[in-house]
Amino acid sequence: MRFRLGELAERIGAQCVGDAERTVRGVATLAQAGPEDLSFLTNAGYRALAEESPAGALLVGPGMDFPRRDLLVHAEPYYALAQILEILHPVERPTPGVHTAAIVGLDCRIAPTAHVGALAVIGDGSELRDGAVVHPLAVVGRNCVVGEDTVLNSHAVLYDGTVLGARCVVHSGAVLGSDGFGFATHRGRHVKVPQVGRVVVEDEVEIGSNTTIDRAMLDETRIGTGSKIDNLVQLGHNVRLGKGCLLVSQVGVSGSTVLGDYVVIAGQSGVAGHLELGSGARVAAKSAVFKDVAAGEQVAGIPAIAAGRWRRQQALQHRLEDMHRRIAALEKRLGSKEGE
Amino acid sequence: MRFRLGELAERIGAQCVGDAERTVRGVATLAQAGPEDLSFLTNAGYRALAEESPAGALLVGPGMDFPRRDLLVHAEPYYALAQILEILHPVERPTPGVHTAAIVGLDCRIAPTAHVGALAVIGDGSELRDGAVVHPLAVVGRNCVVGEDTVLNSHAVLYDGTVLGARCVVHSGAVLGSDGFGFATHRGRHVKVPQVGRVVVEDEVEIGSNTTIDRAMLDETRIGTGSKIDNLVQLGHNVRLGKGCLLVSQVGVSGSTVLGDYVVIAGQSGVAGHLELGSGARVAAKSAVFKDVAAGEQVAGIPAIAAGRWRRQQALQHRLEDMHRRIAALEKRLGSKEGE
Amino acid sequence: MRFRLGELAERIGAQCVGDAERTVRGVATLAQAGPEDLSFLTNAGYRALAEESPAGALLVGPGMDFPRRDLLVHAEPYYALAQILEILHPVERPTPGVHTAAIVGLDCRIAPTAHVGALAVIGDGSELRDGAVVHPLAVVGRNCVVGEDTVLNSHAVLYDGTVLGARCVVHSGAVLGSDGFGFATHRGRHVKVPQVGRVVVEDEVEIGSNTTIDRAMLDETRIGTGSKIDNLVQLGHNVRLGKGCLLVSQVGVSGSTVLGDYVVIAGQSGVAGHLELGSGARVAAKSAVFKDVAAGEQVAGIPAIAAGRWRRQQALQHRLEDMHRRIAALEKRLGSKEGE
Repeated sequence: MRFRLGELAERIGAQCVGDAERTVRGVATLAQAGPEDLSFLTNAGYRALAEESPAGALLVGPGMDFPRRDLLVHAEPYYALAQILEILHPVERPTPGVHTAAIVGLDCRIAPTAHVGALAVIGDGSELRDGAVVHPLAVVGRNCVVGEDTVLNSHAVLYDGTVLGARCVVHSGAVLGSDGFGFATHRGRHVKVPQVGRVVVEDEVEIGSNTTIDRAMLDETRIGTGSKIDNLVQLGHNVRLGKGCLLVSQVGVSGSTVLGDYVVIAGQSGVAGHLELGSGARVAAKSAVFKDVAAGEQVAGIPAIAAGRWRRQQALQHRLEDMHRRIAALEKRLGSKEGE
Repeated sequence: MRFRLGELAERIGAQCVGDAERTVRGVATLAQAGPEDLSFLTNAGYRALAEESPAGALLVGPGMDFPRRDLLVHAEPYYALAQILEILHPVERPTPGVHTAAIVGLDCRIAPTAHVGALAVIGDGSELRDGAVVHPLAVVGRNCVVGEDTVLNSHAVLYDGTVLGARCVVHSGAVLGSDGFGFATHRGRHVKVPQVGRVVVEDEVEIGSNTTIDRAMLDETRIGTGSKIDNLVQLGHNVRLGKGCLLVSQVGVSGSTVLGDYVVIAGQSGVAGHLELGSGARVAAKSAVFKDVAAGEQVAGIPAIAAGRWRRQQALQHRLEDMHRRIAALEKRLGSKEGE
Repeated sequence: MRFRLGELAERIGAQCVGDAERTVRGVATLAQAGPEDLSFLTNAGYRALAEESPAGALLVGPGMDFPRRDLLVHAEPYYALAQILEILHPVERPTPGVHTAAIVGLDCRIAPTAHVGALAVIGDGSELRDGAVVHPLAVVGRNCVVGEDTVLNSHAVLYDGTVLGARCVVHSGAVLGSDGFGFATHRGRHVKVPQVGRVVVEDEVEIGSNTTIDRAMLDETRIGTGSKIDNLVQLGHNVRLGKGCLLVSQVGVSGSTVLGDYVVIAGQSGVAGHLELGSGARVAAKSAVFKDVAAGEQVAGIPAIAAGRWRRQQALQHRLEDMHRRIAALEKRLGSKEGE
């Protein structure tokens, strides 16, 4: 399938500069693209590579000048790229229906437009709404809901009672609803505190591979609409995320911590339990948050402090040797002064 | 099902204050509870919330005074809560028997009271003891043992030869017995050192979702009775945990390290290989342990040092700017003194 | 099966000291070995244990003197051990053929010598080459390639289009080819950037349990020949590893970062995106790399700096209290000097 640049420009709201009749078939990197590909430049540092790229056309941001090339110009080129990829590399939806080798429990409501793959297991009383996709070997426990157009990849697991909203993606190996880590130590025995709550995921949430989200002890662990969670992330029981949060790979959030909207936690950071991170809070990579973070605040470090202060302390780390030397010099100078 | 407060008090060894005839049906948080729910107060900070809670009754610790409420008073309220939840929200045991869509190997001994779910795979020569539960799509390799009343959740994997004791819980995606990370580098090639040992888990151990425990190179990787391991934890080959250890989410312990009894490692901490952590040792969150830790010692930091010392160093971090300024001031003052 | 020491010496290129006719049946640790076992000493610290070990024979490095024992002496004893374990504890290959309860798609090419276990799922258009093994409940997506003698353990998942070379091992729960974490934020919505590239794994790569490797946005995420990746590691989209890299457990490498050959990243370290780590670079455990690392360079710390410099800064951390005291003392001395 081929698309005219003029047509693409119209569909994504870009400006076409050059030959609007030129056609492209796919998207490729600057180095890999051929004359039938569209490539893109979202970082000015790659300008030289873009000049030499054999790509048929380029998607660029405003103010990028390439006199002899055919261009799509968009104010948000990365967003434009997302749209272009959807058009040029559309995802194939699986055929509706339940595979004969799937195991479906009693009292399930499976929409006719939903798809259940081979060897998937759907527990009693669960519901799959319009366009829901459960790939082979995924598990939907009992009394779960999988919302409209939500996709569970192979080996994803929903424990009993988990609710997923519409247009979510759950990647392979993600586990939603396993027991929170709650034990009451009594006479040297760690007695399990039954975890009887559930996990609720709102709409348009993406959950990465092998991420784990524990069910609440009571009530809910809840992931707000539009939040995106990377691979190997851990969310403890009763954690709550607002809307549009971004949690990068290998982050951990301990039990009962509450995140506002649009909170960003960079890779490998941890947040202790029973805290609040206000809307728009940002945690730098590899940090450990042990205190509440105010809305809009940026923190870094172990333990995490205001990011600006952390940077100043880091700079001083690099002057420790110098400081140590200067103290010794002062002692010597003062010693000889005193000896006078 | 409804329970009288008086009956609950008797069963969990609590004191009932107020109307022992009042009945409750479930447990709920202070905010969510209704008049037919029992709620609980384990943290004095929530007292105001408890005053206003519409809960029918409250479970509290000793010395908590609520004149107009019906109470269960217990010296260890969190432990009491664990017991109450077991009574009011009992876990349903699956029906004994092997699902017709399970795959069971040769020479297996499966107790009549055990349950094997749909599409679970049990390898040749394995044994499932009384009340053992293997949920759908879990894998028990060859020559494994699953002890009495032990539960393997969906997608848990036991490699060949793994032994689980009684009353354990293994959550989804946990992998027990995969190969340790052992390679002998010979002329630029990392030659695999065959990992021919196994994993042995004693009784009453809980293992979180997507946790990985490697088999021993030789001999055993062993998890002591009553130890509890959270999600996404990594235990290397030949690691040994004593009794009652607690390992919080995303902890990693490298090969051949030995933990005594009741060792606690907080979230995202790592322990290097071939170390010993004595009984009762505690590692703070986000630490990296590169040396042995004595019994009862608390450590923190990267690299980990005695927790008290770590706290003092942290405090000095915050005075680095001040120290730097004072050195410069001293230099100036001494300079003018010298210039006299 | 029993082996004469003389025969073993010949097969692994070791020197036999003592009775070459003595036979052994297995390998065991110094403490566990019996008179029919070979044990080994690769660390001089265990010499006393070796003296007393009931082992029938010992594998040791050069210059280890045990007058009354039968020995295999090898210049690289750990490498010799790897070879001995292969001989004495050979891995059983599963029988060729496709289990009747496996689900195989259309247009697959499965070599007659390949093995597909029960309830494994092979997608349309995929290829399993000679000796490939897909264990029960593993998933091979559509249009994948599994190379000669490559082993996919239970619950490993290959998303569509993943290519594995020869003699690789993928452990349980590893996920290859899930979507990279790419979103373009447009008017408060994180719009998914379709991830249309793939994962290519070259030959002799081992991938640990529950490790996740994301497909490229475009083009490839690629793991070079002979690289070994431990459990619970995260590799982002478009990451490239050269040959012979070693990534220890719980490491994370962000998108588009490129590693040369023989890069070593120790446990729980993270590397930011769009960086280059030159061949032979080494990252200490629990570090966070935010800058390029030159070939052969060793780095440590958060943020990572040259390892030598990091060690000096660490040493100064322990002198902070002392420095603080000395500054105060200087101020006092200078004050009284000034007061003269």
